[in-house]
Amino acid sequence: MANYTIGVDLGGTNLRIAAVDAEGHLIEKLTLGTQVALGRDHVVSEMCGAIRQVAERHSGSALRGIGIGVPGIIDMHTGMVRQSPNLPDWVDYPARAVIEKQLGTRVFLENDANAAALGEKWLGAARDFDDMAMLTLGTGVGGGIVLGGRIWHGMTGMAGELGHMTVEPDGVPCGCGNKGCLESYASATAVVRMAREAIAGGAAALARAASDDPEFSSKAVYNLAIQGDEDARKIFRRVGRALGIALSSMVNALNLPMYVVGGGVSSAWEAFAPAIFEELRWRSMVYKATAPESATANGAKTLVTRALLGSDAGLYGAARLPMTP
Amino acid sequence: MANYTIGVDLGGTNLRIAAVDAEGHLIEKLTLGTQVALGRDHVVSEMCGAIRQVAERHSGSALRGIGIGVPGIIDMHTGMVRQSPNLPDWVDYPARAVIEKQLGTRVFLENDANAAALGEKWLGAARDFDDMAMLTLGTGVGGGIVLGGRIWHGMTGMAGELGHMTVEPDGVPCGCGNKGCLESYASATAVVRMAREAIAGGAAALARAASDDPEFSSKAVYNLAIQGDEDARKIFRRVGRALGIALSSMVNALNLPMYVVGGGVSSAWEAFAPAIFEELRWRSMVYKATAPESATANGAKTLVTRALLGSDAGLYGAARLPMTP
Repeated sequence: MANYTIGVDLGGTNLRIAAVDAEGHLIEKLTLGTQVALGRDHVVSEMCGAIRQVAERHSGSALRGIGIGVPGIIDMHTGMVRQSPNLPDWVDYPARAVIEKQLGTRVFLENDANAAALGEKWLGAARDFDDMAMLTLGTGVGGGIVLGGRIWHGMTGMAGELGHMTVEPDGVPCGCGNKGCLESYASATAVVRMAREAIAGGAAALARAASDDPEFSSKAVYNLAIQGDEDARKIFRRVGRALGIALSSMVNALNLPMYVVGGGVSSAWEAFAPAIFEELRWRSMVYKATAPESATANGAKTLVTRALLGSDAGLYGAARLPMTP
Repeated sequence: MANYTIGVDLGGTNLRIAAVDAEGHLIEKLTLGTQVALGRDHVVSEMCGAIRQVAERHSGSALRGIGIGVPGIIDMHTGMVRQSPNLPDWVDYPARAVIEKQLGTRVFLENDANAAALGEKWLGAARDFDDMAMLTLGTGVGGGIVLGGRIWHGMTGMAGELGHMTVEPDGVPCGCGNKGCLESYASATAVVRMAREAIAGGAAALARAASDDPEFSSKAVYNLAIQGDEDARKIFRRVGRALGIALSSMVNALNLPMYVVGGGVSSAWEAFAPAIFEELRWRSMVYKATAPESATANGAKTLVTRALLGSDAGLYGAARLPMTP
């Protein structure tokens, strides 16, 4: 009888559930809407109902556990969700205990960006590396660090808040209270903000795109960038510079072999990646000594690359959680 | 028969050797000058001669190994010193092999700042913590990260270059090629540079101190700061701000329980520490959630404190190396 686990990616908009076997093969995937407005009890009931249905369809196999990636701050010891930007009523909510009670199965909670890092480590861009870090560029910028094949949680499970590294100490105010966080320059929100600043400064093509599109997004800015619009290209160079500053410090501090950049904004990789490598080459002595293009003593290379699993990274990572206790 | 190890702190000026037992008690300490100008073969011979003498005096005990802290970049796999700012002719020098051949004993080479971190973890400010990081504020700024009780080396042994984290992306040029490294604001060299800048800007008391003292140093600036001189105090606030920016990013990324600040400049702790904590409180969401003065859910605290072992941290850490293979 084959083993499998269930991974859940609990977002503010979508709730995705996957049954995955021990080799990482997808058995089944299910997507529901997350009805945040109906409250956390409703969201949890819907989720548990869907998990139960998936489990019943595979009752011939052994369910080894359930992993759930949740946006927000999780206390790993207690299984409490301390707070979540996308699930506003999940404040000091004992999610793990509630869900385990409903399902009668072991549940592993994890921050969604940590889960994404574990997913890319297991099956994605970092699958050949035990030590890696991932930046997830979405509405915000999430981060995850994997050391020795396991998520590095730190003291309270809050490690990996890489989106809140300071890259411009007197820069743009961030929702976290700091100024100049990476997130304020490399998230989808930041791309749109910088586009609106450029429009205010007279960027004509961006202004047209914004007025044509009621849901003007970072994707629209990217479309202009690949068409060669200099104002749009400049915005992605700023994205790349901010990522390059943060990555330079990470490479100097941790000397990992692999750094993965994922999330929705990473589809603009071609537009911002050159600026990342430009910054890395002059800002990081450790990168300089180990850059792929340089000849190093023992062949050790520092790789910075885009994610491979797209929006499924967190889902696969969540499914991996019960396998890496 | 008691076990002991020998630790060596190989600096550009002094060579210090200590015999230490397994509990960290000092058996014997020896200080020699490092005659760098006579070349690396001479330095190594002198060191090996002194180590042999120490070992002969304790021939009734079992020498478990020799640990040597070296300033510079060390390839952990090969035991090569790639380069060293204070030992100019140690370029791609197979130091471990040379020393092992002369002594016939197992030798553990380590970057001196990593050794200092291990020393503070073993016997100093971080002795109750398995996970910690240390910043050593000297001529430059060194760093070391200890995870699970062991030095985190990263892929090539270059991890922990915390002095080269970027804290001001368009700031002061650093010898490493970057601009705005922590080292350019928090080293003894940086304190003197900032003092000379202040003197050029009309800082009277600093100007008097500098003209009275041919070896005008960061200590002289500190003496003025504790006497209340505003120009000198301002310099240490800049030291603290730079440390606070770097530590905020480290706390957000790693969520360690303990960060130790040591090295010669840390004797000015009172002058720069308030600025560190001021930065941490608003820049680091992880610090905010775990600050010692805040009531946290499970009592987990993030501590930032000064080192306890003074200039012996690296010596004890080096002696610890053969015990933590």
